[in-house]
Amino acid sequence: MVGYAFMGAAHSQGWRTAGRVFDLPLQPRLAAICGRDATAVQAAADRHGWAAAETDWRALINRDDVQLVDICTPGDSHAEIAIAALEAGKHVLCEKPLANTVEEAEAMLEAAERAAARGQLAMVGFNYRRVPAMALARQMVADGRIGAIHHVRVTYLQDWLVDPEFPLTWRLEREHAGSGALGDLGAHIVDLAQYVTGSQITGVSALTETFIRERPLLAGSSAGLSGAASGERGQVTVDDAALFTGRFANGALASFEATRFATGRKNALRLELNGEKGSLAFDLERLNELEFHDQTLPAGTAGFRRILVTEPEHPYLEAWWPPGHGLGYEHTFVHQARDLVHAIASGTAPAPSFADGLQVQRVLAAVEESAAKNSAFTAIPAQEART
Amino acid sequence: MVGYAFMGAAHSQGWRTAGRVFDLPLQPRLAAICGRDATAVQAAADRHGWAAAETDWRALINRDDVQLVDICTPGDSHAEIAIAALEAGKHVLCEKPLANTVEEAEAMLEAAERAAARGQLAMVGFNYRRVPAMALARQMVADGRIGAIHHVRVTYLQDWLVDPEFPLTWRLEREHAGSGALGDLGAHIVDLAQYVTGSQITGVSALTETFIRERPLLAGSSAGLSGAASGERGQVTVDDAALFTGRFANGALASFEATRFATGRKNALRLELNGEKGSLAFDLERLNELEFHDQTLPAGTAGFRRILVTEPEHPYLEAWWPPGHGLGYEHTFVHQARDLVHAIASGTAPAPSFADGLQVQRVLAAVEESAAKNSAFTAIPAQEART
Amino acid sequence: MVGYAFMGAAHSQGWRTAGRVFDLPLQPRLAAICGRDATAVQAAADRHGWAAAETDWRALINRDDVQLVDICTPGDSHAEIAIAALEAGKHVLCEKPLANTVEEAEAMLEAAERAAARGQLAMVGFNYRRVPAMALARQMVADGRIGAIHHVRVTYLQDWLVDPEFPLTWRLEREHAGSGALGDLGAHIVDLAQYVTGSQITGVSALTETFIRERPLLAGSSAGLSGAASGERGQVTVDDAALFTGRFANGALASFEATRFATGRKNALRLELNGEKGSLAFDLERLNELEFHDQTLPAGTAGFRRILVTEPEHPYLEAWWPPGHGLGYEHTFVHQARDLVHAIASGTAPAPSFADGLQVQRVLAAVEESAAKNSAFTAIPAQEART
Amino acid sequence: MVGYAFMGAAHSQGWRTAGRVFDLPLQPRLAAICGRDATAVQAAADRHGWAAAETDWRALINRDDVQLVDICTPGDSHAEIAIAALEAGKHVLCEKPLANTVEEAEAMLEAAERAAARGQLAMVGFNYRRVPAMALARQMVADGRIGAIHHVRVTYLQDWLVDPEFPLTWRLEREHAGSGALGDLGAHIVDLAQYVTGSQITGVSALTETFIRERPLLAGSSAGLSGAASGERGQVTVDDAALFTGRFANGALASFEATRFATGRKNALRLELNGEKGSLAFDLERLNELEFHDQTLPAGTAGFRRILVTEPEHPYLEAWWPPGHGLGYEHTFVHQARDLVHAIASGTAPAPSFADGLQVQRVLAAVEESAAKNSAFTAIPAQEART
Repeated sequence: MVGYAFMGAAHSQGWRTAGRVFDLPLQPRLAAICGRDATAVQAAADRHGWAAAETDWRALINRDDVQLVDICTPGDSHAEIAIAALEAGKHVLCEKPLANTVEEAEAMLEAAERAAARGQLAMVGFNYRRVPAMALARQMVADGRIGAIHHVRVTYLQDWLVDPEFPLTWRLEREHAGSGALGDLGAHIVDLAQYVTGSQITGVSALTETFIRERPLLAGSSAGLSGAASGERGQVTVDDAALFTGRFANGALASFEATRFATGRKNALRLELNGEKGSLAFDLERLNELEFHDQTLPAGTAGFRRILVTEPEHPYLEAWWPPGHGLGYEHTFVHQARDLVHAIASGTAPAPSFADGLQVQRVLAAVEESAAKNSAFTAIPAQEART
Repeated sequence: MVGYAFMGAAHSQGWRTAGRVFDLPLQPRLAAICGRDATAVQAAADRHGWAAAETDWRALINRDDVQLVDICTPGDSHAEIAIAALEAGKHVLCEKPLANTVEEAEAMLEAAERAAARGQLAMVGFNYRRVPAMALARQMVADGRIGAIHHVRVTYLQDWLVDPEFPLTWRLEREHAGSGALGDLGAHIVDLAQYVTGSQITGVSALTETFIRERPLLAGSSAGLSGAASGERGQVTVDDAALFTGRFANGALASFEATRFATGRKNALRLELNGEKGSLAFDLERLNELEFHDQTLPAGTAGFRRILVTEPEHPYLEAWWPPGHGLGYEHTFVHQARDLVHAIASGTAPAPSFADGLQVQRVLAAVEESAAKNSAFTAIPAQEART
Repeated sequence: MVGYAFMGAAHSQGWRTAGRVFDLPLQPRLAAICGRDATAVQAAADRHGWAAAETDWRALINRDDVQLVDICTPGDSHAEIAIAALEAGKHVLCEKPLANTVEEAEAMLEAAERAAARGQLAMVGFNYRRVPAMALARQMVADGRIGAIHHVRVTYLQDWLVDPEFPLTWRLEREHAGSGALGDLGAHIVDLAQYVTGSQITGVSALTETFIRERPLLAGSSAGLSGAASGERGQVTVDDAALFTGRFANGALASFEATRFATGRKNALRLELNGEKGSLAFDLERLNELEFHDQTLPAGTAGFRRILVTEPEHPYLEAWWPPGHGLGYEHTFVHQARDLVHAIASGTAPAPSFADGLQVQRVLAAVEESAAKNSAFTAIPAQEART
Repeated sequence: MVGYAFMGAAHSQGWRTAGRVFDLPLQPRLAAICGRDATAVQAAADRHGWAAAETDWRALINRDDVQLVDICTPGDSHAEIAIAALEAGKHVLCEKPLANTVEEAEAMLEAAERAAARGQLAMVGFNYRRVPAMALARQMVADGRIGAIHHVRVTYLQDWLVDPEFPLTWRLEREHAGSGALGDLGAHIVDLAQYVTGSQITGVSALTETFIRERPLLAGSSAGLSGAASGERGQVTVDDAALFTGRFANGALASFEATRFATGRKNALRLELNGEKGSLAFDLERLNELEFHDQTLPAGTAGFRRILVTEPEHPYLEAWWPPGHGLGYEHTFVHQARDLVHAIASGTAPAPSFADGLQVQRVLAAVEESAAKNSAFTAIPAQEART
């Protein structure tokens, strides 16, 4: 694993736990973790259960005891590390967004395709696909439970930037983060909406905004989400919020909103689909629940029902606890590890692929382009099915 | 009153009840109701408590015992009736949307201004301003409880057109209704969002869609929302759904959605405001509730709180029932009648004025223009404060 | 009508509105209203639309233009007025609880039976049976949608006595109110639970409590819920809260709680039924909703669904507004008036009858007896079917 | 650890993870796990990460590499194993309920007291105290945020016995389980209510019921919650549901319900406290949320607020994920492990102690006694503070 901050901790929990809960064909072994600060990375290795620590990711990807490289760094280093790891013959799991630009993502996809020919796998870490309620939603859509979809309505609302004194971390700098709420939150909801509906976005019209353009500079290193502020101020170079409407290939109208200024909303990834036969609604703040309206029932007793997604027949749930004993956020990483291990063992291409990651990147680029062009509707080329 | 369908019944209930509940300076008297079908209008008069029935609105507006004309007809007749009533020296309450076009609305505003000089009042029936929770929200925004607003998020979701066999009523014909979900539902949320925030929309970027373009023709008259279908089909000439993003004069980003295809959502007018000091959220399907997040409280015990808007200190509530004994949809018309009677008695200009109605019409026109121009962001001129 | 406070206003609204909304076989005429204070009762007559005012209820019940007497006074006068009105040949609607003691209720039932032989009707005002969601729940239970019932769970939570300075009104005096939360709130939930389940309570085990035993005396008259406090204090002679468990004739276990000390709960009449085939849940603070869990559906997509009880096929709803346009508290009185008018027109016995009211009184008496006897389980004789 | 079914898996997850997330003064080492079936226990050891497997718990508690014995067996073996482990010089964590009878629990407490003198610790596994929302609730009560408490309202609703064909597992046999819903679910809510309020129950009045008295016998072993049914039937010898009212030492009235027949409720441990200054409400099906009503705020903007208990200042949360990224059921076992490790390292008595466990047992015994004595109110002696 490269990187050991928030995502590093979450992924480690996934790798450590997957084989304890699920029957896996291969057992993950936590070989080595990598970070630039030798002391800090050794502490992370001890804390999270990695057998070794490295300070140079090039050394890590060349270790013989490493078969899979899990990339948990900021987006600006994804392309370089992922391509090198694939060239070094490793499988790769790369955190989302796949890259900071379409060009990088294209290069990554090419590397992944070359590697696929050698039997190596590459996957993007859109972990919310592994929320059981979201996997169930996809199943239900695929099974025709809501019929043809007319509306897709998705938001990802957080509020950690409302305070103007929140400091200028790497996530607020374009050179490291690529974009702001758009790449961080918007990438999740674009992927998730396309995954659950099984359809791609064909075009978008967008507005973006940076509400607070100057923030306190961090005193020291900018690693992590937070840190002590210094007396100076610097420019915020990414968006605070991005709103876009769009159309799906299946004919649905869509509305997206990603923001870090939705005061009081902590992690409100909300998705609603309205179809001709029913509707689905989800809120990540209540991740064990999926709401379902079945339009085929008599109107007098129909309504949105709260499915508690904790039954043994629900995705991933058979291995966990009895009904009603809910899961949490980090379980998505356990499920991600499980699915990737199965893919590696069976040699089948995992999803979301780098092609999926590139396609999301193209949507994000179209959002930025539309926002720059007076919100003009901007088409997104259909992703060729290459993998 | 002109018209006696859904809105006619609701307004009648308002006029009959206002003086029974509130202390009014003048008592409304239900003088005469007007409709084209003599038998039907007499039945409506008897049912709703009107002293007389007329079949020609020109006769109605010339009656000496009529001081106020309440227009509850489809939008295509608003301008003609309202202008004539004002010219005849009557006060006017006109259902929303004010008109089907900006031009008509402008003519109505001019007539209203001439009438104002004679002491006559003109008001538009945006009744949702009179939901106590919405009046409370406006107060709280005005009192600075949520500070500067960053996000406005509004939807008005209904589902009565999901069935492709729902017939082609007047609401689906551009010549009568002007537009579809946009004018019917979108007009409400545009007005409400501007009212609650106290700020105007300065521009929009829009997508509209008609999902089902042909529907069964009605066998007989097309009055009312429903009716028996005939074997033939006709063209739907209005939008089924309208999505738009926008900017407010106060700097907020906004998202709007009006649709009749949100399966399972019956009357989901939802509004959320995120400000620097707090947030407000509302759902018309639970109209006695207002959610409020107070960001100035310590984070450890903060959260969205459900205010049950049934306390005597809440707007309109002192005259009603004890706390927890909720109101319903029709109470908005009682409150509308109350407020207009107070305005007439005191000779003060009522809100929403025809100028407000015209401004909403301009937003709707900009939505249609943007949708026609590849979603290009379309500016809306600030409404000059003429009344 | 006798009495013109909270209930008087609510009943007046019901009588005035029923014929405006529903097709009634007879039109209610608001003949005369009665109260002890001549000025106040005339003002009430004017406000609520009664043609005449009386200061002596004996005069009222002897008026020739009165066919129905609606009793909205405190419980200590119900028996005397109701019996006299029945003897005078009038139909009677009596607010709940039917009486303050079982003995009074028995005398009232006897009078009602004698009157029934003469074609007069007598009904008790358990208005919550007329919440559409509750009428729907009863239908669903009767239709077998939840099967045999195992659990009945009911609370009625209010909080208006939490403040120790709230004054000693008549509702806190045993001589006027009979009991406290028990008779006021407990009577509602006992009736409602028996109505919805279609089964009677066969025994109870109870705890009651008066948390605050002394309160400020009212300065002047004690009419109404509130009033200015004087400097002196008096004894609270009724319960603040009553909890009881019980058994139903159908085998269900039941839990009841009635309190005026549930801080933050304004009108939380909550009812949940768990049956072998499903469950129902209701909260009066969201009276347009009924939750239904259908156990016969596959577990993977089952869950409590929120039925918005605003569809035309729902009880009472065909006469009101389109789906999603909710009703309020007072509509129960419109429905009560409608149902009683139909009963009078057709000469059929209305429900809830005085026999039903007496049976509720017996449950309340058993609660008090159990509370006095160390919570011993106290049986309630099955109500003989006399009417 | 002794036992490796549901609780064994959950506790293992706790022990494995605590040191990966929290800074612990000692690192837990998973030395050995014990079960009667050699093959099955070895598989469990491999799955859950235990270094060794034992088939005789006496061998386990005498291992030198074991310092703490975690007892996850059915209640009938708790006393024997716990006492022996304490006598063998080990710390003990014992799953709830502490024992199947008061006598066993008393003997366990005596053993714990003797062991305490030797520096050994004993704790009961009431894990729901470690739900962050419940720890926060206790803090808020202790801080006076809701003032003196008037009402305690607790239910624990499950539904896995509604199907009459569900087989007769050990949990339905008195000899193994001690009681039914009472000991399984009731024990949790008795402990939790006393913990959060900081007050003890002084007496109860109870009803219990076994709705289905015969069930299919299991074909083979009865380990676990489920299993294949055979053709024969056997007697259910425990309660399906237990309802009781009670009084707390602090003057509060309380209502408890534990049932396995609440159709559609999967794990609805719901707790509500109403105090003079506010209220708290919780539902285990939404375990990341705590509702709080603050009565000291102005009534016009007060209401139950949803605290998302995921802030770094919340109990246990600093070590986990960013705000809004919720935890699940199993995290309670991680927190339990953390707290016990801290207690062992510092030599301080952990809570809940065996004395706490005994006191809960006395409440359960009083419930059964009251149910057997016609629901007579049955006093519970105050727990002497011995540890």
